[in-house]
Amino acid sequence: MRQTLRVLYAEDLTVGECFEIGSWHVTADEIVRFARDWDPVPIHVDEEAAALSPFGGLIASGLHTMAIAVRLGYDNFAGDVAIHAGRAIRELRMLKPVRPAMTLTGSIEIIEQRLRDDGRGVISWRNQLRDDEGNPVLQFVAEVLVNCRNR
Amino acid sequence: MRQTLRVLYAEDLTVGECFEIGSWHVTADEIVRFARDWDPVPIHVDEEAAALSPFGGLIASGLHTMAIAVRLGYDNFAGDVAIHAGRAIRELRMLKPVRPAMTLTGSIEIIEQRLRDDGRGVISWRNQLRDDEGNPVLQFVAEVLVNCRNR
Repeated sequence: MRQTLRVLYAEDLTVGECFEIGSWHVTADEIVRFARDWDPVPIHVDEEAAALSPFGGLIASGLHTMAIAVRLGYDNFAGDVAIHAGRAIRELRMLKPVRPAMTLTGSIEIIEQRLRDDGRGVISWRNQLRDDEGNPVLQFVAEVLVNCRNR
Repeated sequence: MRQTLRVLYAEDLTVGECFEIGSWHVTADEIVRFARDWDPVPIHVDEEAAALSPFGGLIASGLHTMAIAVRLGYDNFAGDVAIHAGRAIRELRMLKPVRPAMTLTGSIEIIEQRLRDDGRGVISWRNQLRDDEGNPVLQFVAEVLVNCRNR
């Protein structure tokens, strides 16, 4: 079980706030294992086919990169948030290929805070992963229902 | 390796065409295993905590449900498409909770076909999963660069 000292309620998540969510080292083994289960395109699971493709080698499934962003976000931010439920993902962009041996670093920025009368707030945040040079490789907006402290 | 007889090029994917992509039986074990790796929220990984939550029991991570949609889509449609690269996911909506023992059935509808001068087309399709009663539980739009037959 996750042990946490802080709980972030809807009132706490004000627009413009940023959270660093840490880093993830990508390996060829993880790229292949994830894609075999969920997105078994040759460019994600077959080193030889990938080498002959326009990308010149294995690249991660976009779904895998998104999963890394979700996991980093949970471990370093969302696990502390009083989430009732996720509602939507918007504007997911796969901006650059993710390759073995890259280290991805993530951040989350709050972009919408709409407190409702029913004790919950609609909170949207942008989750972005960057490569070793700081270039964005993937980003998306998550729209989440978060409990208010005062209900 | 996937063996396939058809290849679908950008010219073939006309707006309004629909493809059935088959069914997937969801289990509690798969819900917990996926979420332990990628989205370890108590409601996805802890039966007891989930039973006490407003949802009354385990529900699948939205990311897991999306992964099921991607896998069904690959096995029954996208694996035949001459995809160059995925570009974006838009309008992902988690419409209803996904619970153990549900069988999800998917479909894909082409909603955008924009052939470009460079031998590729921008193709967007809506991937939707429905529950045993036919109610949508998750949908999203995938925007993909697809090779043209004639380049």
